[in-house]
Amino acid sequence: MFVSDILSTKGNRVVAVAPEDTLASAVATLSARRIGALLVLATGKDKELLGILSERDVVHALAHDGDGALSRRVSSVMTSPVTTCDPDDTVEHVMELMTDGRFRHLPVVRHGELLGIISIGDVVKWRLDETRQEAETLRQYIAT
Amino acid sequence: MFVSDILSTKGNRVVAVAPEDTLASAVATLSARRIGALLVLATGKDKELLGILSERDVVHALAHDGDGALSRRVSSVMTSPVTTCDPDDTVEHVMELMTDGRFRHLPVVRHGELLGIISIGDVVKWRLDETRQEAETLRQYIAT
Repeated sequence: MFVSDILSTKGNRVVAVAPEDTLASAVATLSARRIGALLVLATGKDKELLGILSERDVVHALAHDGDGALSRRVSSVMTSPVTTCDPDDTVEHVMELMTDGRFRHLPVVRHGELLGIISIGDVVKWRLDETRQEAETLRQYIAT
Repeated sequence: MFVSDILSTKGNRVVAVAPEDTLASAVATLSARRIGALLVLATGKDKELLGILSERDVVHALAHDGDGALSRRVSSVMTSPVTTCDPDDTVEHVMELMTDGRFRHLPVVRHGELLGIISIGDVVKWRLDETRQEAETLRQYIAT
């Protein structure tokens, strides 16, 4: 199974912020959208992927700067460069990247084009659906 | 495979805070230990499990209260009551709980005793190890 299989269920939508946004603004977006990470895209025409801002980055900035963290720019808090994956990567490869790198979100990029984002929650949900389908196939096989 | 299998590899250590600690103190611990959630244990003799404080709870508090969030008590920010699992639960059941509840950490409790904590990262790492072992078993089977 491949990253493209997850994307075909989940869709290509990503939630992004600009590098010059404040952390306060990014935190409001994370909270309102109930998501764990935002992609940081350049404000120019090409919308280049500059980095990723996760809940963990927010916690580290707060631990470092206390109250002052919220007025920092996203560009100074985000993780950059960001590890990405290809739609043709296997889900197992993505699991390895997440486990080894201890991160929970991977933007999906092909030939410089941003196609979506995969979270560790998506991977677990996909694995669960796969297990259920296997069980259902077995049940049907036994019933016939 | 069961929750107890993950715990036997990972160990029983949990990182905890007290409900009367400030969010600033909890954030410092999350950052220093490089973990995604803290268990909130009562300060009394029984150390009752009162709740869980995740990176997501921190982000929501910040979005709600801005700078003032850091002086809030952990008890007013934590998620409570907290969903737990049993060491005899299957890993698949834990995956379901995490997917349906959209959370990434589950304390392991038996008969009121706190035995450890399982993260979504542990589940993915365990699944990856299992897949590798299956492949290795197949390779050995083919080679003999």
